[in-house]
Amino acid sequence: MVDAVKSLAVRGAPAIGMAGAAAVALWARESRRGATGAGEVSAYLADSAEADEVACARPTAVNLRWARGAVLGRARVRATGARLLRPSPTTSSTEASAWRPRTRPRTAPSAPTAPSCCGRAPASSRTATPAAWRTAFYGTALGIVYAAAAQGKMERVYADETRPVGQGARLTSWELSRANVPCTLVCDNMAASLMAAGRVDAVLVGADRIAANGDAANKIGTYGVAVLARHHGIPFYVAAPTSTIDPTLPDGSGIPIEERDPAEVLPQPLPGVEVWNPAFDVTPAALITRIVTERGVFEPGKLVY
Amino acid sequence: MVDAVKSLAVRGAPAIGMAGAAAVALWARESRRGATGAGEVSAYLADSAEADEVACARPTAVNLRWARGAVLGRARVRATGARLLRPSPTTSSTEASAWRPRTRPRTAPSAPTAPSCCGRAPASSRTATPAAWRTAFYGTALGIVYAAAAQGKMERVYADETRPVGQGARLTSWELSRANVPCTLVCDNMAASLMAAGRVDAVLVGADRIAANGDAANKIGTYGVAVLARHHGIPFYVAAPTSTIDPTLPDGSGIPIEERDPAEVLPQPLPGVEVWNPAFDVTPAALITRIVTERGVFEPGKLVY
Repeated sequence: MVDAVKSLAVRGAPAIGMAGAAAVALWARESRRGATGAGEVSAYLADSAEADEVACARPTAVNLRWARGAVLGRARVRATGARLLRPSPTTSSTEASAWRPRTRPRTAPSAPTAPSCCGRAPASSRTATPAAWRTAFYGTALGIVYAAAAQGKMERVYADETRPVGQGARLTSWELSRANVPCTLVCDNMAASLMAAGRVDAVLVGADRIAANGDAANKIGTYGVAVLARHHGIPFYVAAPTSTIDPTLPDGSGIPIEERDPAEVLPQPLPGVEVWNPAFDVTPAALITRIVTERGVFEPGKLVY
Repeated sequence: MVDAVKSLAVRGAPAIGMAGAAAVALWARESRRGATGAGEVSAYLADSAEADEVACARPTAVNLRWARGAVLGRARVRATGARLLRPSPTTSSTEASAWRPRTRPRTAPSAPTAPSCCGRAPASSRTATPAAWRTAFYGTALGIVYAAAAQGKMERVYADETRPVGQGARLTSWELSRANVPCTLVCDNMAASLMAAGRVDAVLVGADRIAANGDAANKIGTYGVAVLARHHGIPFYVAAPTSTIDPTLPDGSGIPIEERDPAEVLPQPLPGVEVWNPAFDVTPAALITRIVTERGVFEPGKLVY
């Protein structure tokens, strides 16, 4: 699972949190077979290098760390023999399964890859609601898009391609087309022209970690779009589950920014040419109009979590 | 030559102007074989569909239109037998050859492709001077970079990759590495993070057409970078030869913006996903600190041409 998270086979802050929680839970279930007493199991889990490896698979999204803490915390409480971390598919009694969305928008498409299915409710659960959350990176924001589209309030989505890995081109636009939401794909460097042409009413992005003051780390390019939105007088919304909020950080300056392989940008290295490939940036709270979580819509400085 | 310009084998506003001028001159030389009198030749050229085809090969850069006008204007003046538009490689008596730079920076590398060699002086001409111009799209701006580097004033260049065609990744960074100018390649969507980190002292871009008021069309993404530069208090410079200025346009709203093949952005079409692929954007004069031409450094509203 750590390899899958590092290689982006699983991607999106809530989705990798889900995957991490599942990995820790699975590992805990497998590894406890020698232990007997609840205290022994709990101590063993708390000191586990494996859970640390999950928590540190990627540095920016706080959800992995949260996953470790949530699952191990639950393990401490419930370390009583057979019920230890053995989630039932029909209950949401563990943190890992509690992360599943309560409902699924009527228009939600299937996931593009198996890993981003994580956290999705069964297809039979079809209640459409604006509060429906799909716990994948774009899913959190796209849940709002799907709900708005179902209410006839979404004329068109302009999806940025998202260099260098192309999540917007490969995933967002694909998911939108499957959901029959009108979608136009643009390169990241075309967003400013779209805004100048008056074609953008609002910007909606996800987040990988939100500091206590509302500063939000998200996929690289988000900060630039926030500056552009401000310049053009366009509201800028961040959508994320509360598991993305890191109350231990007073502001975004402490959020670690993952730098990834230069080959993602330049597959054929050029002698003498360096590459800088940060996977995330931090948008200051002052550029964010509202942060939307499953608990409500908040001014960035007045987050409830 | 029209095919070469359309397919981007020749790219950059001054370079395609050079190529267009050469094409018109070559065509004029070939096609005049039936004509005799100067007046007859001149009238024939002025009404030529071939020259129009060159002028319209790409819509945004004004240099193609300028090339047609300059070469045909010279033809009218000089339509006297053997001297008609037969440029000598050792003189600069025609418009096409007059566009060659007077000098070549000492650190200038070879051109990455044959077409962008257009307009370069012979390698034996090695006088380094800040006024040295290389008439290719990035070359105009890179001429300044090379001169600054030769004077020890250029610590590092951050080159944007320039989606979707990747001129920054394939050409700019390559040329800079050949010139031994320290270069870091970033994706377009990383420029904001660079600026926020205080790593950018100035932004330097080229132009494809500059309106009389200083509004400047340039490769897509330029306008967004200009907004980012303003937000971060970073000066924003446009470098272009005066052939890029279009005095017939009072402002940038009249500059036609070429829209190119969606396949440049999305090679494998996705059903239901549209693509918007403008090749240029327009940066308003208000966001431009200075425009640099071979005639000097100007406030955008006070251009001399």
